[in-house]
Amino acid sequence: MADDRFHVYDTTLRDGAQQEGLNLTVADKLAVARHLDGLGVGYIEGGWPGANPKDTEFFRRARTELDLKHAQLAAFGATRRAGMRAADDPQVAALRESGAPVVTLVAKSHDRHVELALRTTLQENLAMIRDTVSHLRAEGQRVFLDAEHFFDGYRSNPAYALEVIRTAAEAGADVIALCDTNGGMLPDELADVVHEAVRTSARVGIHCHDDTGCAVANTLAAVKAGATHVQGCANGYGERSGNANLFTVVANLQLKRGFDLVPQDALADMTRIAHAITEVTNVTPNSHAPYVGTSAFAHKAGLHASAIKVDPNLYQHIDPALVGNDMRMLVSDMAGRASVELKGRALGYELTPEHTKSLVERVKDLESRGFTFEAADASFELLLRDTVHGERKRHFDVESWRVIIERTKGGELVSEATVKLHAKGERIVATGEGNGPVNALDKAVRLALEQLYPELAKLELVDYKVRILEGTHGTDAITRVLITSSDDTAEWATVGVAENIIDASWQALEQAVTYGLLRAGRETP
Amino acid sequence: MADDRFHVYDTTLRDGAQQEGLNLTVADKLAVARHLDGLGVGYIEGGWPGANPKDTEFFRRARTELDLKHAQLAAFGATRRAGMRAADDPQVAALRESGAPVVTLVAKSHDRHVELALRTTLQENLAMIRDTVSHLRAEGQRVFLDAEHFFDGYRSNPAYALEVIRTAAEAGADVIALCDTNGGMLPDELADVVHEAVRTSARVGIHCHDDTGCAVANTLAAVKAGATHVQGCANGYGERSGNANLFTVVANLQLKRGFDLVPQDALADMTRIAHAITEVTNVTPNSHAPYVGTSAFAHKAGLHASAIKVDPNLYQHIDPALVGNDMRMLVSDMAGRASVELKGRALGYELTPEHTKSLVERVKDLESRGFTFEAADASFELLLRDTVHGERKRHFDVESWRVIIERTKGGELVSEATVKLHAKGERIVATGEGNGPVNALDKAVRLALEQLYPELAKLELVDYKVRILEGTHGTDAITRVLITSSDDTAEWATVGVAENIIDASWQALEQAVTYGLLRAGRETP
Repeated sequence: MADDRFHVYDTTLRDGAQQEGLNLTVADKLAVARHLDGLGVGYIEGGWPGANPKDTEFFRRARTELDLKHAQLAAFGATRRAGMRAADDPQVAALRESGAPVVTLVAKSHDRHVELALRTTLQENLAMIRDTVSHLRAEGQRVFLDAEHFFDGYRSNPAYALEVIRTAAEAGADVIALCDTNGGMLPDELADVVHEAVRTSARVGIHCHDDTGCAVANTLAAVKAGATHVQGCANGYGERSGNANLFTVVANLQLKRGFDLVPQDALADMTRIAHAITEVTNVTPNSHAPYVGTSAFAHKAGLHASAIKVDPNLYQHIDPALVGNDMRMLVSDMAGRASVELKGRALGYELTPEHTKSLVERVKDLESRGFTFEAADASFELLLRDTVHGERKRHFDVESWRVIIERTKGGELVSEATVKLHAKGERIVATGEGNGPVNALDKAVRLALEQLYPELAKLELVDYKVRILEGTHGTDAITRVLITSSDDTAEWATVGVAENIIDASWQALEQAVTYGLLRAGRETP
Repeated sequence: MADDRFHVYDTTLRDGAQQEGLNLTVADKLAVARHLDGLGVGYIEGGWPGANPKDTEFFRRARTELDLKHAQLAAFGATRRAGMRAADDPQVAALRESGAPVVTLVAKSHDRHVELALRTTLQENLAMIRDTVSHLRAEGQRVFLDAEHFFDGYRSNPAYALEVIRTAAEAGADVIALCDTNGGMLPDELADVVHEAVRTSARVGIHCHDDTGCAVANTLAAVKAGATHVQGCANGYGERSGNANLFTVVANLQLKRGFDLVPQDALADMTRIAHAITEVTNVTPNSHAPYVGTSAFAHKAGLHASAIKVDPNLYQHIDPALVGNDMRMLVSDMAGRASVELKGRALGYELTPEHTKSLVERVKDLESRGFTFEAADASFELLLRDTVHGERKRHFDVESWRVIIERTKGGELVSEATVKLHAKGERIVATGEGNGPVNALDKAVRLALEQLYPELAKLELVDYKVRILEGTHGTDAITRVLITSSDDTAEWATVGVAENIIDASWQALEQAVTYGLLRAGRETP
């Protein structure tokens, strides 16, 4: 179990799930909880049992299906309704019955919200807090209190906001988490208010949203001002601009401020965990996320590459291995020899000086014609292989292809592609239909090759991007297509460039298949 | 021109362009510069003339093609090479010859970088700074200095880092921008170092990266510590985790700290500008971006709804209209009744309340399906006409179309399109060949209609943009095509959305021709 002196409290499953477009099943929630426990967070807020049947089920299934190593579950809920006893409130009963060792109660701390949203008196709100906290404590649960709209409330009526803290603490709440619910705070003012809250001698936590782009900094400022409990969400999920990104908060505190929050080996698994969670949530990962993004340690500027060879730490703020990430050199038109060498080595090739020179020239030439290799690692590796082999080797040769896209008189849309290929001594003709020209081509190629290479069944096109280069010649412009493909273990990207968008797509597709076959262990003839 | 006492300095076109996957043509750069000027930034760093042919061309074309209202251009470059005179360094000459009123010189301020990356002595580095700054000043340009790796340098050798500031200021640099190049700083320590820098009595600026998720907060902390020049990038673009998001910085300072940085009406256009820039860069907009993201003021929590009605300010940190955003955020910013009415009036239509209501609903529905009318004025006007007329009126009706794209056995590429249309009582069949499917379709349509509408000869396709919406289904994703067309006096844009890229292109093309005919005075039957 985690040290109780400082809490890393995750609210992905409750507040993070408020994100637009994010919908988690109970199984998803259980999977995310396992990942968070793997990172070593102290508390996982699982949802609001009673208010939401899915969350009730989550706590029920968690008892048998979750075997948490570090974390404890927290059930989120509200203080009792006005004018009744906590012991009689069915909403409070659901929290009791959740079986969660911790209950986090949300309470109003902003006078106007008490009056306008809760429609009760300031005194009754305090009574609701006192009664609910002490009832749950008496029933054996630990209680944390989320003081909603605390900072706006402090601006409106500081005495009342502080009174909420004192009331909850005196009734037995272990932590009062101050919530910047609307997310509008900046670090300096927030720190001043946290200071005042800490002076009540209650234990103070912090819950921030990113509406000013300062959620992480606000959290750090609160910790410096005395908060010993930080709330946040995996990958910064949450309503509007999101909650404080718990991964960034933990990495900053542990790597830059000397806190000992999660095990070092769990921290070194953070990048994988962050991505695994995006697989569950089905939210496109933010490649620019601090610490864990795929671009977080990627370098483009060629002029740095030679110095990076001398000492990588001159150009990175931490060793990316500490969070399980990796420095990547992007091959781009700014690329020099050094970055191509580094990149080749990362891919497992020892390039001779002649190969390096030839490859750099080839990359520069192709990039001047619109290719981009920084976003197309697989195309770069094929180019590197061709350079090392001295020739272009492929599993199949293309005789011809044709795509027909038609809108019929009846309004029907038809996309049909025919490819004629040679592979393993055979000539193969195959036709595929799709919902568009590239989809039809993709289907035709698979149909042609799957007999010979059954592993293609695992290959999937996961993304297709088009960019028109030079916007001054209308359809005469050059088209760049980037295709991302995956098999069951990895993703790779390929690039094609041509005047004709279908031709460019074909190039990228052909490389995607070639690279997929190489990954599956099929060497070229 | 902007007030010189506080600089809003944009480096999207230089440092932002280091972002993985971001590639800007010269035309793109000019377009982004116009948008930034529209926001009212004080300085736009255009690139590194001399080091990069594209950037040299940018500054050349900017002289005739950019008519900036607020901003001044800055050329970025390095101090002279070791062991030569600044006046003799061709790299410095390119900065002089750029014609930019401001040159921003990057200089090393970290002792180890001087020794390992620059491979010169600490003294020679200071001489390089002194010589280059005073040379450019003598030649009539204003000089800012980017002190690279300043904060890491200060940790390594504070006396030397401060000496770099003093040297540059004494040689005539107006601003020394302290760069957190590796992005590893947290606000408290950064503020302490900025304090020390300000004590040199040089004018200090700040340049932050987001590797700790604190770029915005670091920038604000620097301003509080005395910096009067903030650098950042549109939408937080930049290498690794990105640069400080200039939009967030400006909104925070202006709306929450009382700075007067950009005109209020320009700030109220910030959301539109942020999105328009993503159309140029073709980078998927971050829906969670503070202030300008489509989710930034979106509310999911049902329990707030009634209180929001009582007082929306209880649930939002600012009035979203201040930055041109919208609390409801149902798909379209433009789809508010008032803006549709305004837009209709601007186009010369007086809309009845019924028409307005119907049009708002239609726009919302279409935008939820991927259309964007903000970037497609002509499509919006056609939609408006259809609404006013109560039916869809066109100069021609489409019976069917077909496109064939083929790579023959001989390697030849053929794109051929056939359209069957009805116009003025005639049925017309025409076939066009092109260098790609859209070009072929365009030619076929003109061939079919030019006999009846000779003014089509003046119509030209000047830009074609493709965007794949939702990147998780490969070629199943929805494709949005934007086509810009021109006649001899104006340009207009149309939009098409479909699973099939050719179908989407066709929709945009058909509207482009229709709109062109309307412009030429041809009323629909």
